[in-house]
Amino acid sequence: MPEIMEFTIQQIAAMLGGEVKGDGNAKINMLAKIQDAKPGQIAFLSNPKYENFIYTTQASAVIVSKDFVPKKDVSAALIVVTDPYSSFTVLLEEYHKMMSFQKTGVEEPSFLGSKTTIGKNIYRGAFSYIGSNVKIGDNVKIYPHAYVGDDVEIGNNTILHTGTKLYSGTKIGNNCTIHAGTVIGSDGFGFAPQADGTYKTIPQLGNVIIEDNVTVGGNTVIDCATLFGDATIIRQGVKLDNLIQIAHNVEIGKNTVIAAQAGISGSTKIGENSVLAGQVGIAGHLVIANNTSIGAQSGISKSIKEEGQKILGYPAFDIKEYFRSYAVFKNLPDLNQRLRDLEKKMEELKLPTEKP
Amino acid sequence: MPEIMEFTIQQIAAMLGGEVKGDGNAKINMLAKIQDAKPGQIAFLSNPKYENFIYTTQASAVIVSKDFVPKKDVSAALIVVTDPYSSFTVLLEEYHKMMSFQKTGVEEPSFLGSKTTIGKNIYRGAFSYIGSNVKIGDNVKIYPHAYVGDDVEIGNNTILHTGTKLYSGTKIGNNCTIHAGTVIGSDGFGFAPQADGTYKTIPQLGNVIIEDNVTVGGNTVIDCATLFGDATIIRQGVKLDNLIQIAHNVEIGKNTVIAAQAGISGSTKIGENSVLAGQVGIAGHLVIANNTSIGAQSGISKSIKEEGQKILGYPAFDIKEYFRSYAVFKNLPDLNQRLRDLEKKMEELKLPTEKP
Amino acid sequence: MPEIMEFTIQQIAAMLGGEVKGDGNAKINMLAKIQDAKPGQIAFLSNPKYENFIYTTQASAVIVSKDFVPKKDVSAALIVVTDPYSSFTVLLEEYHKMMSFQKTGVEEPSFLGSKTTIGKNIYRGAFSYIGSNVKIGDNVKIYPHAYVGDDVEIGNNTILHTGTKLYSGTKIGNNCTIHAGTVIGSDGFGFAPQADGTYKTIPQLGNVIIEDNVTVGGNTVIDCATLFGDATIIRQGVKLDNLIQIAHNVEIGKNTVIAAQAGISGSTKIGENSVLAGQVGIAGHLVIANNTSIGAQSGISKSIKEEGQKILGYPAFDIKEYFRSYAVFKNLPDLNQRLRDLEKKMEELKLPTEKP
Repeated sequence: MPEIMEFTIQQIAAMLGGEVKGDGNAKINMLAKIQDAKPGQIAFLSNPKYENFIYTTQASAVIVSKDFVPKKDVSAALIVVTDPYSSFTVLLEEYHKMMSFQKTGVEEPSFLGSKTTIGKNIYRGAFSYIGSNVKIGDNVKIYPHAYVGDDVEIGNNTILHTGTKLYSGTKIGNNCTIHAGTVIGSDGFGFAPQADGTYKTIPQLGNVIIEDNVTVGGNTVIDCATLFGDATIIRQGVKLDNLIQIAHNVEIGKNTVIAAQAGISGSTKIGENSVLAGQVGIAGHLVIANNTSIGAQSGISKSIKEEGQKILGYPAFDIKEYFRSYAVFKNLPDLNQRLRDLEKKMEELKLPTEKP
Repeated sequence: MPEIMEFTIQQIAAMLGGEVKGDGNAKINMLAKIQDAKPGQIAFLSNPKYENFIYTTQASAVIVSKDFVPKKDVSAALIVVTDPYSSFTVLLEEYHKMMSFQKTGVEEPSFLGSKTTIGKNIYRGAFSYIGSNVKIGDNVKIYPHAYVGDDVEIGNNTILHTGTKLYSGTKIGNNCTIHAGTVIGSDGFGFAPQADGTYKTIPQLGNVIIEDNVTVGGNTVIDCATLFGDATIIRQGVKLDNLIQIAHNVEIGKNTVIAAQAGISGSTKIGENSVLAGQVGIAGHLVIANNTSIGAQSGISKSIKEEGQKILGYPAFDIKEYFRSYAVFKNLPDLNQRLRDLEKKMEELKLPTEKP
Repeated sequence: MPEIMEFTIQQIAAMLGGEVKGDGNAKINMLAKIQDAKPGQIAFLSNPKYENFIYTTQASAVIVSKDFVPKKDVSAALIVVTDPYSSFTVLLEEYHKMMSFQKTGVEEPSFLGSKTTIGKNIYRGAFSYIGSNVKIGDNVKIYPHAYVGDDVEIGNNTILHTGTKLYSGTKIGNNCTIHAGTVIGSDGFGFAPQADGTYKTIPQLGNVIIEDNVTVGGNTVIDCATLFGDATIIRQGVKLDNLIQIAHNVEIGKNTVIAAQAGISGSTKIGENSVLAGQVGIAGHLVIANNTSIGAQSGISKSIKEEGQKILGYPAFDIKEYFRSYAVFKNLPDLNQRLRDLEKKMEELKLPTEKP
């Protein structure tokens, strides 16, 4: 990774609202872990487990907590803050911004359709394809091999990583990040069974709308809605992981988080601020209430009406009850044997009582 | 979406075998939902729930059923048919055809290998790659970033969406649609364990054959067969959704439908007219009978010999029996307690009977 | 497939350490199955079930075992070896090598960044993208539409199939094969919940390291580690299938095999020589011991400390015990009925004993 930042320790402390102990004039050009840091780099100490490393680190500066009292000499300058991890995260973000604002301009060959308008400060990578009647905002980055179909709209500050594929008519808001290989707007899976056993394709003429501040992981697929004028909708602040399936006409409520390899079937509406763990599957035409938490690999076959539930299972129900049932499941052979023993005893008991 | 069709209401009625009530000369250039339609657009009324909209719609025409009797004035012209939804679908299809037949010609740069033959009326998008010794039929659309390896054959009217990847030797029939990012013909997962714990790669030299009228969703993967001369086969009329895994030497019987994220392991044969729901997993070397219906997330570890079964579970068995067992599963802690109660009562009972 | 090899039967026998019975001078240009082989091709007979085909095959040569005694006339020349299947595999490998060594040179247009060094005997397909500060070894094949971000390192003899996507900073060793559409180094799924219900993106600054002799299937995603200096690590000899999710900071131990659609959550370490079947899901921050075998679709929610276990279930436990419990699960309605019967009998029994 190239060294693209260079600040003095004093400048970084000012950025973090921290206090410097030691030489504030040394220059920092990179972030690192305390055990790996080299001269010119800055690290942090948050977990006491790592305290020993601060006495041997080669870092030029270490961000520490107000509560930290060195037991030995520390050669690094210290930046004293309230929460070292959180401060380090701020630096990471700054660093990240500097990194990602590096890429601008147009690499050739790239393809640009007609009647397309593009904002300021754009990156268009080599072999990127932008169709006709497209509208793209400012500070957008379109990496190599990304495909933007006709009639697409993209807001400001959005990043399409390499090989992102947006079918015609897709709409994406501001500050979104779409990771590599993800497909948005492919045909919904709609086929009408015919008398002879074949299926007729139901044309899929809607689109996908992705609101602001949405992140979508790699190789995920989001299908378009069926009818013209309808949309599959991903509301603002939603975070989708890798390899997720979002079927036609689905709506994901704002700030909902969905982990990798989950699948949502057609026309299902997921509420706001919900969390779906990995490999969850949700049937079609359901409504899932806000603040629902669904455990990994669960299968959901009915709507969830009450907010704030935590569920698990196949099909899923209350997570605590699932684990209670599952504890008995593990002992089912034993339980079966106990039942047999009882039956035998009952038989022995009944024999005398019935005979006389 | 551009306005690419323009017909009079009378022309559309003729196309649908319907009767016009009102002005048949107005022009229609777009399809829409009855609640959203604008002048120049046509909508339909099928579900009585939506009847109110017909009295306020701005649509120039509405397709209605023979049974429809207006309760108020309707400003739109009516096209009276037997089944309004089905008629609307016919229009959608016509519209879709007009849309997709728009794209023809070659965008540059694109890559074309040697000894390759290509039919009439082709679309080859920018950055599409077609290798050597390839045969492509008429009316084929190859979208940007699609990859067609050497020795591939593609029939007529087939669409490869953006980023489709066909390894060398793949064969695809007529009227197929392959969605974005799908990989066809990648190496089967074959490795021979060695004495030292490492694995030796078993070369995968077969190919994939996809027959006519097949649709494959986005980011699906279909591996090639292992031996030269063998093929992984997707029979005619099969519909595969997104993110599906089809391993080497699998065969999917005709008109079978497989939903998203399902996975079929190596050498398994799925029968005809079967339906596999989402996230189903099927073990290797099995045979699944025709007309089998497999519930979402089911795991199949044994062949299914009898046709027409509906199964569910992990591993799967009869779906009704699964739900019966699952109903008891949910109450297992209670059942366990009832058993304990009985054991206690039995102990109490036996004590007196044994003592004397 | 083009005919790219041509050897005499005698030359092939020498390659395999076998003995020729018949005409050793005929020329072989292709491998085939015994039932399909044509003149000029070589097949093998290993499974006695296929013996009949040897009397009718058109193959010019058949590899047979020392134990094979023909019952009728065989027109093909025989190559007698100890293990015909294994010998045929050797030929397949040779053939495969010849095939894959075919592709060399640079197809245009292709993109090459600055300060990038590339070894000898390279294939760079059309529309491939190689960024800046990249180091690539000898005999590497980079297929069309592959994307190699900045600061990537790739060893010798590695193959990146079409549409492979390597984010900046990825490191790949020698003799690796990455299949089409696979994404390596995308952002880990890390978001910090905020008081207002939104999520803040945690910058993902680590990378992915893939050691030697690793194979990764198609459309798989491997996320980068979170902190700069950290890596998601795939150890030497690992074999990953298609559509797998490997989250940030995961480590997969050497020679471990993972089947399609499995998902490993963040920071989990999988041991060496383990086998994960298809659609397995593993929670985050776990440690899985060496030589663990995990059945298809299992969910793993706790670390596995003891080596050599075979587990199954959701959550998973010992595979034999799982099947024992599952056998009872299938009969739960019956078990429930037996319990009711006992309760009723107990009630009848107790009535007389309580009354007096």
